[in-house]
Amino acid sequence: MEKSASNGEVTAVPIPDSWNFEPNERLLGLMSLSVRGVLARIKAEMVAGGGGGGRPVIPMGHGDPSAFPCFRAAPEAVDAVAGALQSGEYNSYSTCVGLEPAHSTGLSRAQGHNKQKLNPAPALCVQSLAIEIVCSVLARPGANILLPRPGYKFYEARAVFNGMEARYFDLLPEKDWEVDTDGVQALADKNTVAIVIINPGNPCGNVYSYEHLAKVAETARKLGIFVIADEVYAHLTFGERKFVPMGVFGAVAPVITLGSLSKRWLVPGWWLGWIVTNDPSGVFQRTKVAASIRTYHYICSDPTTFVQGAVPNLLENSKEEFFQKTIKILKESADICWEKLNGTNAITCPSKPMGSMFVMVKLDLSCLQDIKDDMDFCCRLAKEESVVVLPGRVVGCKDWLRITFAIDPPSLEDGLDRLKSFCLRHSKPAQ
Amino acid sequence: MEKSASNGEVTAVPIPDSWNFEPNERLLGLMSLSVRGVLARIKAEMVAGGGGGGRPVIPMGHGDPSAFPCFRAAPEAVDAVAGALQSGEYNSYSTCVGLEPAHSTGLSRAQGHNKQKLNPAPALCVQSLAIEIVCSVLARPGANILLPRPGYKFYEARAVFNGMEARYFDLLPEKDWEVDTDGVQALADKNTVAIVIINPGNPCGNVYSYEHLAKVAETARKLGIFVIADEVYAHLTFGERKFVPMGVFGAVAPVITLGSLSKRWLVPGWWLGWIVTNDPSGVFQRTKVAASIRTYHYICSDPTTFVQGAVPNLLENSKEEFFQKTIKILKESADICWEKLNGTNAITCPSKPMGSMFVMVKLDLSCLQDIKDDMDFCCRLAKEESVVVLPGRVVGCKDWLRITFAIDPPSLEDGLDRLKSFCLRHSKPAQ
Ligand SMILES: Cc1ncc(COP(=O)(O)O)c(C=O)c1O
Ligand SMILES: Cc1ncc(COP(=O)(O)O)c(C=O)c1O
Repeated sequence: MEKSASNGEVTAVPIPDSWNFEPNERLLGLMSLSVRGVLARIKAEMVAGGGGGGRPVIPMGHGDPSAFPCFRAAPEAVDAVAGALQSGEYNSYSTCVGLEPAHSTGLSRAQGHNKQKLNPAPALCVQSLAIEIVCSVLARPGANILLPRPGYKFYEARAVFNGMEARYFDLLPEKDWEVDTDGVQALADKNTVAIVIINPGNPCGNVYSYEHLAKVAETARKLGIFVIADEVYAHLTFGERKFVPMGVFGAVAPVITLGSLSKRWLVPGWWLGWIVTNDPSGVFQRTKVAASIRTYHYICSDPTTFVQGAVPNLLENSKEEFFQKTIKILKESADICWEKLNGTNAITCPSKPMGSMFVMVKLDLSCLQDIKDDMDFCCRLAKEESVVVLPGRVVGCKDWLRITFAIDPPSLEDGLDRLKSFCLRHSKPAQ
Repeated sequence: MEKSASNGEVTAVPIPDSWNFEPNERLLGLMSLSVRGVLARIKAEMVAGGGGGGRPVIPMGHGDPSAFPCFRAAPEAVDAVAGALQSGEYNSYSTCVGLEPAHSTGLSRAQGHNKQKLNPAPALCVQSLAIEIVCSVLARPGANILLPRPGYKFYEARAVFNGMEARYFDLLPEKDWEVDTDGVQALADKNTVAIVIINPGNPCGNVYSYEHLAKVAETARKLGIFVIADEVYAHLTFGERKFVPMGVFGAVAPVITLGSLSKRWLVPGWWLGWIVTNDPSGVFQRTKVAASIRTYHYICSDPTTFVQGAVPNLLENSKEEFFQKTIKILKESADICWEKLNGTNAITCPSKPMGSMFVMVKLDLSCLQDIKDDMDFCCRLAKEESVVVLPGRVVGCKDWLRITFAIDPPSLEDGLDRLKSFCLRHSKPAQ
């Protein structure tokens, strides 16, 4: 071994290739489940292909409107965080697991739980790791979890990484993407621990009725499984149906609700989420789910302390007009989407989105002459039109597309027009 | 099922107790490894016991000086983050995995890698989840990892949670806590994937010489294992030895270095860390370690985007005087500690701390008349004197104590005086 005089860096004889480490194939295999991973691939191909004649890229692939000026975070929210940061009181590790009771009441109210009674257990934590925490807590060898298809694949990635089996039940396009509860019952067995319900829905834009959620809760009760209610899109609804929090059915089956600042406050990069249990019968105490969630907090990282510290002011100062403005733009965008997509060749849109920021559309490949599948469609669309949408396979539905309409309306119109030209250009000549 | 008229909340018949979920005992068992968990228990007992006659609590248990005015974060750092937040440009999810090259060069320079040559692979990521990421990537069924004792148990918790075996090698108190490299060789086998080196050290306050680190690297090379260099206390040294980054030995054995803003910038609550690979021979590419780290990023959360965005300004504007001031106080505190502890009955301090914020001391229980063990010592000390220190068992050494001296010097003196009275009061009468 030689030590070079200048900087102490060591130059050794060439290193042998006999290292004990073996690649973790389970981990490497998860890449294909990732929205970020697939979009990165599509964008890389777009860039390599010269990128649609220099026109601006229209990003309808991922659900992050925060880059557009019309979806800018509220100054009240920014001020709350800046205030907490500048106070100097929130540079430390957080001293407790999760939030003070005052915050948790505020957050569960924000989540739509108007009565504190709905949360007999305190809101347990803040975390954008909510999905990781829940999957880590529920996993045991042989266990399985029921996930919606189409759905948000992050659940499968975390479940599989933790050694659980992911089983998919269908959402029914012809019924506004309701849960196929018969299918759920056929799928479950004694090793099924929970069912995930995403409402308002990513990727379907569904908003479920009170009656439908009641039916889901009854099904879970019958099967002896918990309900994971992913409500990160809570209150982002713009159809006739209002958002109903799953937590109101906590007395039917215990519910773990996941919430987040990211969507309603338009700040995904602040990474603040939370877990609320709705379980008036105390099942989570008795089965040690609550203790397990607390324990997991000791081995994972916390959200930035000053963002946590900002929560009371952020909740107190948030203005109804800010939320209304977001909803108004989303409604306008959903309408544009519905109209333009219904006039586009080779594309069917089974259900008008009522919430969240997404819509699922079906490709009819038999109308297109040279497109192999959804992945091929998305790569070529990106290359030829600089429009990025997500291949349906990433959310569990091959030869569908997920389109995000949470972008500024003029860009959306432009993007959908380009999508239409693309479909026309690739149409089979009429027989 | 009844729907109450007022708020839609459902009151069902009492819930049965037949849920499929079974508690995750592996997870629940990790609680005892957690510094936070044990300190919470000691504090709870202190409060229950009336708490030391109303005197202020002296927190020498955990390593977070940021609450003390003398360890306040630099205004330059706060301004960098406030600027990024208020720019509105960093509310989104981060678009790429980890940092831009410009940031990564800056960070690896901050880590002590003066030449870019030291990082042929780009700095891979930012994450306070660095330990979780590394453990997740290295784990495979049957694999084991070598950890220092005494050490930071978070590694064991994450390793065990991911199904790896944790094996402990000794640090030698009589040799300024150097690694027992013979012990390391005896411990390793074909399933050993890596060795963790914490330098400057928690909990020992060690700072290793160039020669000792070279020996560790050679040992790793011989065994075919990677080196995980935990350098979150980089540059926090106040003895004669300067900090030498393990990365300079990357050509001997591939090194994964973990760094963090938290200690040097005194902002643990900002949760920004990073992973740098030092591997001029490209072993991590060939063995897919690099790809695995990138993949793990797709299934975990990112640091707050605007804190990431602040990194260039934060690095550029940080003043040498700020770092010097911290070092000066730590040096003063370490001196106080060394003096007072050496004059305390029933306590031996084998090695003066040269870095980090901690010192390990050995309890001689035979000198004390009514103390069972280290846990008992800490609980009673907290109850009687309102002084919190960490039982050695939490860092792997029963009947030792870990004392944090990164608190303001007057409180430290007060705390050590109270510790001394406690020991005197509980001393066995001279025979
Ligand atoms: C259904 C669903 N759940 C959870 C998340 C994660 O949200 P966050 O980034 O706020 O944790 C997303 C993000 O797109 C989502 O669509
Ligand atoms: C040795 C060691 N590694 C890692 C950490 C974690 O540091 P951070 O909170 O900056 O991720 C600590 C914190 O105390 C530590 O002592």
